[in-house]
Amino acid sequence: MSKVDIAVLGYGTVGSGVVEVLNTNREKINRRAGKDIHVKYVLDLREFPGDPIQEKLVHDFDIIVNDPDVKVVVEVLGGVEPAYTFVKKALLAGKSVATSNKELVAKHGPELLKIAKEQKQNFFYEASVGGGIPIIRPMFSCLTAEDIDEVSGILNGTTNYILSKMTFERLDFDTVLKEAQEKGYAERNPEADVEGYDACRKIAILSSMVCEKQVEFESIYTEGITKITSEDILYAKKLNRAIKLLARSKMVNGVTYAMVAPFLVAEDHPLYSVNGVFNAIFVHGNMLGDAMFYGRGAGKLPTASAVVADVIDAVKHLGINIQIRWSGEKMEMGDINDSVCAFFVRIPTASLSKAEKVFGKIRTVDAGVKGEIGFVTEPVKESEFARLAAELPMIQRIRLN
Amino acid sequence: MSKVDIAVLGYGTVGSGVVEVLNTNREKINRRAGKDIHVKYVLDLREFPGDPIQEKLVHDFDIIVNDPDVKVVVEVLGGVEPAYTFVKKALLAGKSVATSNKELVAKHGPELLKIAKEQKQNFFYEASVGGGIPIIRPMFSCLTAEDIDEVSGILNGTTNYILSKMTFERLDFDTVLKEAQEKGYAERNPEADVEGYDACRKIAILSSMVCEKQVEFESIYTEGITKITSEDILYAKKLNRAIKLLARSKMVNGVTYAMVAPFLVAEDHPLYSVNGVFNAIFVHGNMLGDAMFYGRGAGKLPTASAVVADVIDAVKHLGINIQIRWSGEKMEMGDINDSVCAFFVRIPTASLSKAEKVFGKIRTVDAGVKGEIGFVTEPVKESEFARLAAELPMIQRIRLN
Repeated sequence: MSKVDIAVLGYGTVGSGVVEVLNTNREKINRRAGKDIHVKYVLDLREFPGDPIQEKLVHDFDIIVNDPDVKVVVEVLGGVEPAYTFVKKALLAGKSVATSNKELVAKHGPELLKIAKEQKQNFFYEASVGGGIPIIRPMFSCLTAEDIDEVSGILNGTTNYILSKMTFERLDFDTVLKEAQEKGYAERNPEADVEGYDACRKIAILSSMVCEKQVEFESIYTEGITKITSEDILYAKKLNRAIKLLARSKMVNGVTYAMVAPFLVAEDHPLYSVNGVFNAIFVHGNMLGDAMFYGRGAGKLPTASAVVADVIDAVKHLGINIQIRWSGEKMEMGDINDSVCAFFVRIPTASLSKAEKVFGKIRTVDAGVKGEIGFVTEPVKESEFARLAAELPMIQRIRLN
Repeated sequence: MSKVDIAVLGYGTVGSGVVEVLNTNREKINRRAGKDIHVKYVLDLREFPGDPIQEKLVHDFDIIVNDPDVKVVVEVLGGVEPAYTFVKKALLAGKSVATSNKELVAKHGPELLKIAKEQKQNFFYEASVGGGIPIIRPMFSCLTAEDIDEVSGILNGTTNYILSKMTFERLDFDTVLKEAQEKGYAERNPEADVEGYDACRKIAILSSMVCEKQVEFESIYTEGITKITSEDILYAKKLNRAIKLLARSKMVNGVTYAMVAPFLVAEDHPLYSVNGVFNAIFVHGNMLGDAMFYGRGAGKLPTASAVVADVIDAVKHLGINIQIRWSGEKMEMGDINDSVCAFFVRIPTASLSKAEKVFGKIRTVDAGVKGEIGFVTEPVKESEFARLAAELPMIQRIRLN
């Protein structure tokens, strides 16, 4: 079996995971790739004395890009720079790239795909969304007969863990966040997760895959879970729903609306029972109907497994570009103010008759929280909801899926 | 855009669905295929006067196989013959084939893949398992970095519909089956579904994909759902479990055991909440952990969508074989008598002390069914369970997953 050299950029969690997956499943991986995959270099600014990786360690990317033996570059540095510069140079040098980097893909996906195509190599990014869950490749190679009108995902494991813990152990947000940080499920600076920025990059990528144009993540309305309280969880249970941070891209009357926000998910929806650190991507197609892809959306080995699957595909297709349709043309998205959904609202009990006047038909829900009452509106435009809600002393509002 | 001709063998449910999917999503499909996909022939013994398909109708397969314009043949006849003869001839004539035919694939998959490879064409069968759910392609093109030790599926929509209906509407098997037949969810002769034969073919295919050898469906222990009663459902609820017909292939200590049988599925298992006509395939890999693929496992359009996705992939790879590793070498499977699981058992109340003597540690469960009691055993070898259970006047026994 002939050998093929690869290089890994970044020896952090995912990078060391990639080396571990390659070592652990070596025989199966090489058989499927048809070649002996050999890590020639690992790029990292740090030293790893005592780690067998030390002898492959380089600090200078030029060594990698200038080595014609290196056919595939794994980029798992995270962040836009220097990842973007490195990936572009690698592709221009005729190497294929596999990345787990959602910021890079959301921002520069179309350009990097274009270069890969021109070079007759590949730019793969299965691990950038949903960690170990196969979703990118199924989108471009399996659901090809579909007109997909919705992709809704639980795309962030940290927030889903927090919301699940709040639900099942009746704890408040701060307590669970602190515990998650201690366990390493949440970062010390948890902003990217709890404010929905991470999920936003991921739904931008999925939405782009669906419309085959560039959905800019900056244009996606994004709301995190920091305002979700244990009282909200009580109401959710009363409604037989579960609060989930959904990242959603949905086409209504030919217009695509994308947003990230907490939603009250109905009990009969497949995403309802996705708990803990698990992620899932729900897809609706005009022929297929409902489908869902479920698994570990983060973590060293599941993410690394997806990266290595990309490496195998790249090795099998050296010199052959696999087409992924995602042009740089900007996708015109619908204004979120025009999108329609039902809202759950909490108000002081005293304001109930006012609420009925303002919203007309509502369905009240009492979760036994002193001094207040909840209600669910009919489906209403976001802008109209905001206008009406301004008339009430609103304690909380959460969308229904 | 250049044109490519295809032929559809069989104008039944799936065949007419294939034509409908091609017509409905024509623009997207052709864009993704890079060619204008044109149905030149439909093979069927019947006539369809008034249907626009009539003018493409042929009754003689030789017309198709001898037409060099036909590059891809869709086989949706079902059953081993004449499908096998037609598919083999089509491949030998240098055409690619897409099929939804689980009997054909389970029986002749390796041989047909080998011919496709020799001919530098493709033999695809995404729709043969899980209908519209992408699972075959994810197995050979996404989960390639994994050592998969379990595939467990709810692979038959009819039986899952019946079990869900029995669970949620407290009806007995015969009532639900009759209703399912009236609604067209079950065949007039429901044997293939309710006895597990359909699920058996499908798990044989999935298990073969995992071990890359031939798992013979005849060797898979298969038990249907005809003996499941409304009393069993009561016990299942008491145990916080759901009864599902699982088709399972699991490796334990290096030995693979495959079986189809009703299982009491635990509440925290992803397959627990898969209800109605939906199917799902649970996969466990050594790096990935748990993953699940969920969607419509049958039905005209979802199944046709998977067939058309195969056609698109075949059109994109005319003259280029996509490797699917599945050799004709027979897989040595474990003897099901040696496999281990916990059992739920129902016995007359009077036999409880005897049961405790026979099985040692058991956990009783009372669902309020007069004159009897249920219990759950510790995990035990199948052969050992059979030996012990023979000593008791057993009313029912169901495995726990």
